[in-house]
Amino acid sequence: MASVFGNAITLSIFGQSHSPAIGCSLDGIPAGIPVDADELQRFLDRRAPGHAPTSTARKEADRPEFIAGITDGHTNGAPIAAIIRNTNTRSVDYAELRRIPRPGHADYPARIKYANNHDVSGGGHFSGRLTAPLCIAGGIALQALSLHGIRIVAHIASLGPEPVVDMPLDPMKLNEAQTTLISANPLPCISSMAASRMRSCILEAKQQMDSVGGVIECAAYGVPVGVGDPMFDGLENRIARIAFGIPAVKGVEFGAGFAAARMHGSENNDPYRMEATEVRPQTNNAGGILGGISTGAPVIWRMAVKPTPSIGTPQRSVDMDAGADADLTVRGRHDPCIVPRAVPVAEAACALALLDAMLEDGFRFPA
Amino acid sequence: MASVFGNAITLSIFGQSHSPAIGCSLDGIPAGIPVDADELQRFLDRRAPGHAPTSTARKEADRPEFIAGITDGHTNGAPIAAIIRNTNTRSVDYAELRRIPRPGHADYPARIKYANNHDVSGGGHFSGRLTAPLCIAGGIALQALSLHGIRIVAHIASLGPEPVVDMPLDPMKLNEAQTTLISANPLPCISSMAASRMRSCILEAKQQMDSVGGVIECAAYGVPVGVGDPMFDGLENRIARIAFGIPAVKGVEFGAGFAAARMHGSENNDPYRMEATEVRPQTNNAGGILGGISTGAPVIWRMAVKPTPSIGTPQRSVDMDAGADADLTVRGRHDPCIVPRAVPVAEAACALALLDAMLEDGFRFPA
Amino acid sequence: MASVFGNAITLSIFGQSHSPAIGCSLDGIPAGIPVDADELQRFLDRRAPGHAPTSTARKEADRPEFIAGITDGHTNGAPIAAIIRNTNTRSVDYAELRRIPRPGHADYPARIKYANNHDVSGGGHFSGRLTAPLCIAGGIALQALSLHGIRIVAHIASLGPEPVVDMPLDPMKLNEAQTTLISANPLPCISSMAASRMRSCILEAKQQMDSVGGVIECAAYGVPVGVGDPMFDGLENRIARIAFGIPAVKGVEFGAGFAAARMHGSENNDPYRMEATEVRPQTNNAGGILGGISTGAPVIWRMAVKPTPSIGTPQRSVDMDAGADADLTVRGRHDPCIVPRAVPVAEAACALALLDAMLEDGFRFPA
Amino acid sequence: MASVFGNAITLSIFGQSHSPAIGCSLDGIPAGIPVDADELQRFLDRRAPGHAPTSTARKEADRPEFIAGITDGHTNGAPIAAIIRNTNTRSVDYAELRRIPRPGHADYPARIKYANNHDVSGGGHFSGRLTAPLCIAGGIALQALSLHGIRIVAHIASLGPEPVVDMPLDPMKLNEAQTTLISANPLPCISSMAASRMRSCILEAKQQMDSVGGVIECAAYGVPVGVGDPMFDGLENRIARIAFGIPAVKGVEFGAGFAAARMHGSENNDPYRMEATEVRPQTNNAGGILGGISTGAPVIWRMAVKPTPSIGTPQRSVDMDAGADADLTVRGRHDPCIVPRAVPVAEAACALALLDAMLEDGFRFPA
Repeated sequence: MASVFGNAITLSIFGQSHSPAIGCSLDGIPAGIPVDADELQRFLDRRAPGHAPTSTARKEADRPEFIAGITDGHTNGAPIAAIIRNTNTRSVDYAELRRIPRPGHADYPARIKYANNHDVSGGGHFSGRLTAPLCIAGGIALQALSLHGIRIVAHIASLGPEPVVDMPLDPMKLNEAQTTLISANPLPCISSMAASRMRSCILEAKQQMDSVGGVIECAAYGVPVGVGDPMFDGLENRIARIAFGIPAVKGVEFGAGFAAARMHGSENNDPYRMEATEVRPQTNNAGGILGGISTGAPVIWRMAVKPTPSIGTPQRSVDMDAGADADLTVRGRHDPCIVPRAVPVAEAACALALLDAMLEDGFRFPA
Repeated sequence: MASVFGNAITLSIFGQSHSPAIGCSLDGIPAGIPVDADELQRFLDRRAPGHAPTSTARKEADRPEFIAGITDGHTNGAPIAAIIRNTNTRSVDYAELRRIPRPGHADYPARIKYANNHDVSGGGHFSGRLTAPLCIAGGIALQALSLHGIRIVAHIASLGPEPVVDMPLDPMKLNEAQTTLISANPLPCISSMAASRMRSCILEAKQQMDSVGGVIECAAYGVPVGVGDPMFDGLENRIARIAFGIPAVKGVEFGAGFAAARMHGSENNDPYRMEATEVRPQTNNAGGILGGISTGAPVIWRMAVKPTPSIGTPQRSVDMDAGADADLTVRGRHDPCIVPRAVPVAEAACALALLDAMLEDGFRFPA
Repeated sequence: MASVFGNAITLSIFGQSHSPAIGCSLDGIPAGIPVDADELQRFLDRRAPGHAPTSTARKEADRPEFIAGITDGHTNGAPIAAIIRNTNTRSVDYAELRRIPRPGHADYPARIKYANNHDVSGGGHFSGRLTAPLCIAGGIALQALSLHGIRIVAHIASLGPEPVVDMPLDPMKLNEAQTTLISANPLPCISSMAASRMRSCILEAKQQMDSVGGVIECAAYGVPVGVGDPMFDGLENRIARIAFGIPAVKGVEFGAGFAAARMHGSENNDPYRMEATEVRPQTNNAGGILGGISTGAPVIWRMAVKPTPSIGTPQRSVDMDAGADADLTVRGRHDPCIVPRAVPVAEAACALALLDAMLEDGFRFPA
Repeated sequence: MASVFGNAITLSIFGQSHSPAIGCSLDGIPAGIPVDADELQRFLDRRAPGHAPTSTARKEADRPEFIAGITDGHTNGAPIAAIIRNTNTRSVDYAELRRIPRPGHADYPARIKYANNHDVSGGGHFSGRLTAPLCIAGGIALQALSLHGIRIVAHIASLGPEPVVDMPLDPMKLNEAQTTLISANPLPCISSMAASRMRSCILEAKQQMDSVGGVIECAAYGVPVGVGDPMFDGLENRIARIAFGIPAVKGVEFGAGFAAARMHGSENNDPYRMEATEVRPQTNNAGGILGGISTGAPVIWRMAVKPTPSIGTPQRSVDMDAGADADLTVRGRHDPCIVPRAVPVAEAACALALLDAMLEDGFRFPA
């Protein structure tokens, strides 16, 4: 069930980087939710490659063809399915990789697991390209959540070895000025200075035929109190389960996260106060989640993205057919930094996890 | 499905802190696996409270009664079920909590979610006590994994606000000297100096009626290459899903984790070399996992544990019945630091995630 | 996941006939549903053995101990768990069965599947006794469904080799007179004549050291329109999946069932007419289900129960240790006919399937 | 999760009768299984419409495009996905159906459940056309099972109101002569006489603008002992769950099935005898399944298929917009009997259920 997510929803993702198409099936979505195709396309465009010198030269439009589940601009209750054709593939780049696994990629464990039957071209099913169907499903989830007034925002919190750090998202309430800035900057940052310096950092890595990673911060504003469950289906578990499905993610934390481990309880506990007739946490070290359940404060989390493993500099590897050491130079078109394009993917992951939990909790969509 | 974990296995955990008993059902375990009850009890004892001045004064033996699934010291193929009686409960301590939610606990969102029908005594189903049945199941999983030569070790990586830092676990191979030291020290640390300083840190917090958190590092040695899946059922997803089910965990990372976000690709990628006839990663920034699948290197991960929210100092809260601000002083017996007792829980979580993945991959138990 | 049922709920059943206890965990039940323990006990008593000369002499009270999930007579949102102690076990009866499998029982395939590690005493996890925890969960589901005005009724539709046939349940609306008669008769039949003749049939089989089977008909009245799903999670799929989990069930049909295969479409199709402002099917060959979804007509289904395989007459079998033919005489206390005791089990199965579908469809409990 | 099946596998089916395409994703299939596309196409052709005067005039080639999961004629370990374009759609036929539900179809409950947002054209997601992707997945499962020597055969056991009855499948071992006859006859029957009379029965119904149903019998030969599980994931539960996902199926039975309810235990129990070194049941009333687990005897089951609800004769219905009674004449091209085309669908369902159980039991594919 590797590529299947959800309890109330069932998201199945399929495709390989160089198969005829990639796509997804999304079951369990109630009927009658409006789906704005243009808005969805704009969301997908944020993930698509080829828009900037900081990303791979592989250009693909990521235009989904909806083949089921939507009628007259609304979900019809049947599973939603969409595919994206793979058009710009160059399988010739990948011939060597079956023998000589790329460090930092899944080539080696995949060869063992699949007894060398896996599709190695372009990373096969392990390719970051599979985040495109995740964004199709996530983009629909975002539109569904908006019916309950929920907004999800992400940005690059930090990037590079000497980290360029952006301002944090407002942990207490949606800050429209921040979202405007994130959209306006050439990289999704609140601070234009940070965006500019991150851009330089990426281009420098590109020039050195190397790569850099970063941390993405994501917040969901407007989540009602009481969404999620204790133990294994809390919001943290759901978000983490899907976020670790994004290639290159190596860490996930909520609220204060790892920093909470360095606080006293008296500091980390978020005190409550009444605001008019509402109970409100006064700080948000919990990231809006206690016992797996939303507190009404924004749900805030971060994911660590490792530097792209595909780099142009020679690397030490092995020739598995020869059973001997071998050096490898990865060719092809690769992102020197996947972080900017992973920002909408984090939003998609967050939206799907929240929608799954809300549906399981009996929230109605449309509201 | 809040308290249910697993694909090949189905672990159902039930009970509240002050209900007649807590327990678990563990379905999907093959027949014929030997279960050493004494070894399991020793494992459970590492989690049990009341053994040290650093933990709560609530003393409970945590002796499971097996009511199904084991015959003549072996699993019999039927679901394994065990319960632990709750004997040392003092419900009187918790009367006020229904009205005035404790900051940092699930009291407030639980009251909303369950329309005030939840069991508030002792934290109800949200209590850390529910990690006892997790350890029953995890202890059996550890014994099952040992049939494939897998060993899981955890320790306190760091603790407290000015972090006391232990030596790291060997990332390349099992180091028996480390495991001996971890067992011998009064707190589960490799360095006796670190153990001693952590103990002081906890006792200081206790005296101040405050609490501290920490980071636990866990390694699984001997995991064969090829375990796990891409996307949503990789080893990272499975471990994270269960680890975030442990109360107070706010972050999970694998290998270099968040530090990987600050590396260049050329540094973070683990190069391969042949060692005799074996392919071996030369470093382990990946934490033994690429594309969700084990690489043969040790599976290494860390979880951040927040400071215990129950503290003796007065805190700001609200009286939900009165709809007014209210201060709260949490009474009762509480751990000033849950981290030492959470170390075996991390091992249990890791074991269950691995066993689930290996069973799904068709590994045979007994081997 | 053998002993786990449900999408929105997760019912885990555990225990063996002669293990210390049997029980269940039921996760996913909303908080605040009143549970009347006396009503539940009366429901369980209908399944319990030892009440009549037509059933086994093994007497067990089937008194559940609730160990979690219920507080002050209401569900508290945490998993509900209950156990029933096994007190009246005679393992001595079953020693031979490990070697010589009983025809019609799971002994032989279980021995192969579990490599002879299975618990053979009393049928182990395959025992009909495991329907007791199914009835605990089902009894709670029945009480939950009653909050939406749903009533579930079952009776013996036919019994024995020259079938004694009862009157059918009213397929169009709840008939209180029928339910009163079913409760009043010594066997759960609408017709007292049928009940009496069925009783004779069972006693005759008992005297001949043989056994008989029968067909149970079950109806759920008051199910709202629109419950269930197309394809694999329709009401038919859910009911069948759980009904085939009842030992000895070999067939399940809905509405006209197998008889529908012998109708013309013009006869089988249930026409609609308006009744006041309501759309009403005028016949109920569909058994209240079209495309997996409830039509508002009563949900009606039948299950075929094979004759109890444990019979006192000698049977041909094999000695698996010796690898030779062997005859077998099953000793111990057995029902000459399991059908009467399976009637409440059918109601429990139906209730759990419906509750699971309604929760997944977002119906609120309490209503 | 309506359109999702499986534990070890995850089959997601998507599409509507008149959406751009229908298709499926099949996750959890091991790498390295050879897939013969021609053999698969021949299997699909048996289900496809338009081949005979007994079926609908809607002609569609049912040629799947594989878009993922297969490389060089073998499964590659990634989810298998395929789509079939819908080319021959006439939406104009269905305009009226949104208002006036067809008796025997899902129109009415679907309208309520989906608040009139469902796709009504051609039956939408409820269409029998959705069995095409089921057959894609099932055809692959059949090829996988053949690696373990398993063969699945189905035929029309009986058809029509005065049932034309075919010879039964051999319940004890594969009879190649039977399979040859089933392939050779114009309808899938063992007896050419039965095939001929069934054909007449269907054509007669067609002429009367009516429809007929029937019973399909299916057998899986060569299933090893020990496949399946007790309680809710036995072979019976799995097969029934998927079989009730085939439109028009209203009953499922195993082995003697409903007839077992009319036997004595002494007759119904299948005695064992040694045959050389093998334990062999001497009869097969159990349908090869005891306690949910395969006995080594052929797995035999039957499903009742109701007469096609779409008939040309006028029927009583209601106009839901007007809230008034209304008569309805269903136009369009419809099968007067779906039974012949459902025969390969039964094989597909059986294959998927078996493959799921075998994978969960750790059987290796390729063997």
